[in-house]
Amino acid sequence: MVIVMKHGATSQQIGEAIQRIEALGYQAHVVRGVERTIIGAVGNGRTFTPDIADGWDGVEQVVRILKPFKLASRDFQQEDTVIALNGSRIGSDQLVVMAGPCSVEDRCQIMETAQAVKEAGAKVLRGGAFKPRSSPYSFQGMGEAGLELLHEAGQETGLLTVTEVMSVEQMPLVARHADILQIGARNMQNYPLLHAAGESQHPVLLKRGMSATLEELLMAAEYILSHGNRRVMVCERGIRTFETYTRNTFDLNAIPALQEQSHLPVIADPSHGTGKAALVGAVAKGAVAAGASGLLIEVHPNPAKAVSDGAQSLTLEAFSKLMGELKGIAVAVGKRL
Amino acid sequence: MVIVMKHGATSQQIGEAIQRIEALGYQAHVVRGVERTIIGAVGNGRTFTPDIADGWDGVEQVVRILKPFKLASRDFQQEDTVIALNGSRIGSDQLVVMAGPCSVEDRCQIMETAQAVKEAGAKVLRGGAFKPRSSPYSFQGMGEAGLELLHEAGQETGLLTVTEVMSVEQMPLVARHADILQIGARNMQNYPLLHAAGESQHPVLLKRGMSATLEELLMAAEYILSHGNRRVMVCERGIRTFETYTRNTFDLNAIPALQEQSHLPVIADPSHGTGKAALVGAVAKGAVAAGASGLLIEVHPNPAKAVSDGAQSLTLEAFSKLMGELKGIAVAVGKRL
Amino acid sequence: MVIVMKHGATSQQIGEAIQRIEALGYQAHVVRGVERTIIGAVGNGRTFTPDIADGWDGVEQVVRILKPFKLASRDFQQEDTVIALNGSRIGSDQLVVMAGPCSVEDRCQIMETAQAVKEAGAKVLRGGAFKPRSSPYSFQGMGEAGLELLHEAGQETGLLTVTEVMSVEQMPLVARHADILQIGARNMQNYPLLHAAGESQHPVLLKRGMSATLEELLMAAEYILSHGNRRVMVCERGIRTFETYTRNTFDLNAIPALQEQSHLPVIADPSHGTGKAALVGAVAKGAVAAGASGLLIEVHPNPAKAVSDGAQSLTLEAFSKLMGELKGIAVAVGKRL
Amino acid sequence: MVIVMKHGATSQQIGEAIQRIEALGYQAHVVRGVERTIIGAVGNGRTFTPDIADGWDGVEQVVRILKPFKLASRDFQQEDTVIALNGSRIGSDQLVVMAGPCSVEDRCQIMETAQAVKEAGAKVLRGGAFKPRSSPYSFQGMGEAGLELLHEAGQETGLLTVTEVMSVEQMPLVARHADILQIGARNMQNYPLLHAAGESQHPVLLKRGMSATLEELLMAAEYILSHGNRRVMVCERGIRTFETYTRNTFDLNAIPALQEQSHLPVIADPSHGTGKAALVGAVAKGAVAAGASGLLIEVHPNPAKAVSDGAQSLTLEAFSKLMGELKGIAVAVGKRL
Repeated sequence: MVIVMKHGATSQQIGEAIQRIEALGYQAHVVRGVERTIIGAVGNGRTFTPDIADGWDGVEQVVRILKPFKLASRDFQQEDTVIALNGSRIGSDQLVVMAGPCSVEDRCQIMETAQAVKEAGAKVLRGGAFKPRSSPYSFQGMGEAGLELLHEAGQETGLLTVTEVMSVEQMPLVARHADILQIGARNMQNYPLLHAAGESQHPVLLKRGMSATLEELLMAAEYILSHGNRRVMVCERGIRTFETYTRNTFDLNAIPALQEQSHLPVIADPSHGTGKAALVGAVAKGAVAAGASGLLIEVHPNPAKAVSDGAQSLTLEAFSKLMGELKGIAVAVGKRL
Repeated sequence: MVIVMKHGATSQQIGEAIQRIEALGYQAHVVRGVERTIIGAVGNGRTFTPDIADGWDGVEQVVRILKPFKLASRDFQQEDTVIALNGSRIGSDQLVVMAGPCSVEDRCQIMETAQAVKEAGAKVLRGGAFKPRSSPYSFQGMGEAGLELLHEAGQETGLLTVTEVMSVEQMPLVARHADILQIGARNMQNYPLLHAAGESQHPVLLKRGMSATLEELLMAAEYILSHGNRRVMVCERGIRTFETYTRNTFDLNAIPALQEQSHLPVIADPSHGTGKAALVGAVAKGAVAAGASGLLIEVHPNPAKAVSDGAQSLTLEAFSKLMGELKGIAVAVGKRL
Repeated sequence: MVIVMKHGATSQQIGEAIQRIEALGYQAHVVRGVERTIIGAVGNGRTFTPDIADGWDGVEQVVRILKPFKLASRDFQQEDTVIALNGSRIGSDQLVVMAGPCSVEDRCQIMETAQAVKEAGAKVLRGGAFKPRSSPYSFQGMGEAGLELLHEAGQETGLLTVTEVMSVEQMPLVARHADILQIGARNMQNYPLLHAAGESQHPVLLKRGMSATLEELLMAAEYILSHGNRRVMVCERGIRTFETYTRNTFDLNAIPALQEQSHLPVIADPSHGTGKAALVGAVAKGAVAAGASGLLIEVHPNPAKAVSDGAQSLTLEAFSKLMGELKGIAVAVGKRL
Repeated sequence: MVIVMKHGATSQQIGEAIQRIEALGYQAHVVRGVERTIIGAVGNGRTFTPDIADGWDGVEQVVRILKPFKLASRDFQQEDTVIALNGSRIGSDQLVVMAGPCSVEDRCQIMETAQAVKEAGAKVLRGGAFKPRSSPYSFQGMGEAGLELLHEAGQETGLLTVTEVMSVEQMPLVARHADILQIGARNMQNYPLLHAAGESQHPVLLKRGMSATLEELLMAAEYILSHGNRRVMVCERGIRTFETYTRNTFDLNAIPALQEQSHLPVIADPSHGTGKAALVGAVAKGAVAAGASGLLIEVHPNPAKAVSDGAQSLTLEAFSKLMGELKGIAVAVGKRL
């Protein structure tokens, strides 16, 4: 931590800051500049957060030197985390594709989709049962019945399953039916939920919040990791910006930037990242070329009849064609599909 | 709803769109332009949401004409909602100030603060017991013990109390101890929590999410309203932008813009809105002049020792001075403190 | 400047960084932390910018301690800059209102507006002659003829005039006709234009760019100041965010934040800041309460017929009514209109 | 255009709106909904812009149906624009790489770089002579001497050259020395400059403004096209968001989204898009996989000694290695390097 004192901070203010730093168990190193005095606080651990010093008298700003996350960091673990599940190895040189409808709608829809995405090469079936909808008047998902259909489709095809869990109470139920727990963008900082996910034994797919920085995403992952669950994937799914042509802005930088800072597998969601089926393929290819460990793609047998996210869902044919194109990209970056 | 067909959409695609609109119980009015055909869908209700038509063949874009919220809208209720609580009338010509520490830290701190803010003219005591912290290693709040101290301080001073509730399970406990339930920015789209708040009989202070549009904020309020609770206040607390000098960007427009669209009381939080104690006063005054019904301000007897948010907390003296300045502004806009 | 070395930076990399710092005429102070080594660079001047050290081997990040602007800063000049012009004192306790149409359209329109805003208490007449329009097919302004009409209206009413200058070549012409040169948001980082404005003897109203930080705004002001022109006002006119209900997001924080960092007068433009006439009054009042030295407001005798910005223009009556309301606010914050 | 009338708009207001629409040469089609009346305005051309109707009495919002750009649109020209220059065909199935230093610093630096990037497969040499710098105290570029060195390096190696032009006055000079004129992000809405570029006979590389929407970028291109110059490339170089880990957020969606709407070649700049050399390769590969027609990459023989942008510059070796990797990606998407 570097504490920058205000222009004209008094010796007493500087002295107090030093005392407080030492009281926290850190060493204080003072550097007197021409216009400002700065104090470097040297010590171990992450308990001395910037907001502690921010309110001290005479302090202009507090600059964090160390990343606030530890277990999620490359400094802590050099080698990539690989999550092995039923033959899939997420985070390895295998590109793992997760695909399926936004919402589970009925047996026929989820079965048809499961078979098609399996055939095209996907390893994980996605499908929402509890849906976070911005309107209380919109379809809220099939709930438990949807979970059962998803589970059945997974069993029948041998696909792994992933679905969203929206609250602590739903967790045991969702964990019984799905192989991977998804924590959605809107819940990225729902700390009781992260805590519960940390105590579960299930792999977690953690989506980046709509306006979360990469650091905040990794801090959310740190919540899960620090409560004992090391099987966490982080997912870039587009962020909110001023651009309105697309539903979100897919932040391609996030892929190498997360990998630089963290050992956790990085998954890309081009469906939410763009919001438009016509753009999904290009962004999926770009994400793989940039190094993503996996993709999460919305697929529907008949997007025009989908109860949600029809505009961004690929048809079964479009998905199958895309999988073919992804093979070449994967090979070009030393991966296999 | 206006459905814009793509340049070159076929008659069949237009015909299918019309059929689908009618199947949803709406009337379709076709306007053929020089370059595009558009279809106006006329009907009642809010079940036909844009995402339904977004995936139809030949559709370029779907434009919503009606606001997606109903109970929260001025169209539904012309006159301002006034929440009467123990002599305070939030949403009336009375300016209601809510003040107190970010976190309840101990009896002494909360009592001293309660007495001081009461004396300065505040009507509601704020204080966090369950704290959403971005780091799992930071202080997470005193929990139930903090609620009890807050309750006690409220009883002793005759102040109303407001505190954050972070999950459905905490709700009964929090409701026993506090007069107003706060739903924090990070939980603005935690739908199970909104649902539970809607079923409670407690007034709710709903904070705008960090990157929530005004429409999304009012949709979150609609969740609460539609589950039976009409006592909802919405709170502008700064949004996330590219600016880094301040913690958030206080969106002054939000105050008149929310009042234009909705009858719900609008509260301003200049502490989170700026993140810097030195800016809180100016922004508080600006918010009142722009028409806010109330303020939520962080106050601490000794900000340099605060366990959280010290940088944005006013001292008791600074708060008292600000309250004096606010009186003149309130009068100038036809309110009273 | 603080240079943070990477985890595992070698002694050679640290040594090279020290040598480079010293070669730039700065002193290097090394602080070895548990996980990172940091180097404080102490010296005078602003020639050592972070981008210089950013590419050095073994450097993780470079943190600037001093503001990059000097002449614009409060450290350099404690007392507020006051720009005295024809009896108006911009930056003093006098609230200076600048009002008029987006575009000068014809003699009748500008004369009628000038007389009305003068009567209502404005001191400066605004009116665009060269218009930056996002479409090449839109009205581009009356050009020189518009300048002449603006000049005439100013002469006739005794109002000062302000109008936008879009390029270096236009500057002599605009300076002949107007008292204050406006540099628009889109040109905030047009460095040749800033340079020319710095060499002119005219006061400059510098608008914040749509996505400019406060630091960048003050750096743009620094360009003008450093080329010899000390009469600069900076203007908050709303920034671009994800919110779409309003044209821009008026950043209220900017007013006290600019005043904290700089001695230059801060003007608020609630017309562009909101884009909606119905919101202009509330935001104007908020800006004055927060401490703005002046306002820039679009006014038109018949907004429905305005060739540009009709939606955000006040009628003459609405402007006159607003001026009455502003008086009370001004008094409450120790100013006079 | 669709004009949405306010809830409760009077027949007179609706009547006036219809008259105004017809006076503009458009036909008015009225659709009366349950809560709102909307009017479709049907006609030719782009002179009726939304801001014209925005100020009319009783109007709630104005929705544009047609894109505001015409010459830049796919509707106007179906097939891709290909810019043929000295054997390179930008916009074709050839991937064109433009590389070189941020600033031309001296003969040795530009010559060494030119030879290395040529050898690695680049077709265009970039190098700044007039530099837009946010500080007046930073190096502003070598000016004309830099142009001459760039020109010489281009001649010697047979590479095409591209460099930034910052003002109308510089244009003839820059055009004499460079094959492609670059208009920088800060000048994307410098309309006199766009106008002059439109009248020049030189190909133009137009960079997206830091907070420009795709529509605004294409409107800026429309300025150039409409003044007679059809050889325009648009360039995604990252946008400004809340994320601070990277210098900008590279908007991958922009590549397919621009190609969907426009026939102009799309170039990607991963150097500014990330600001960090370690991320440039991944983003370059992602951009090519997503369909970019070319890349603009900063390369320097010794980034640690670069006068500007050292942190984001690749070494000659890193660039050469990246070019090898790009070959496989290019082939996988049907292109050749």
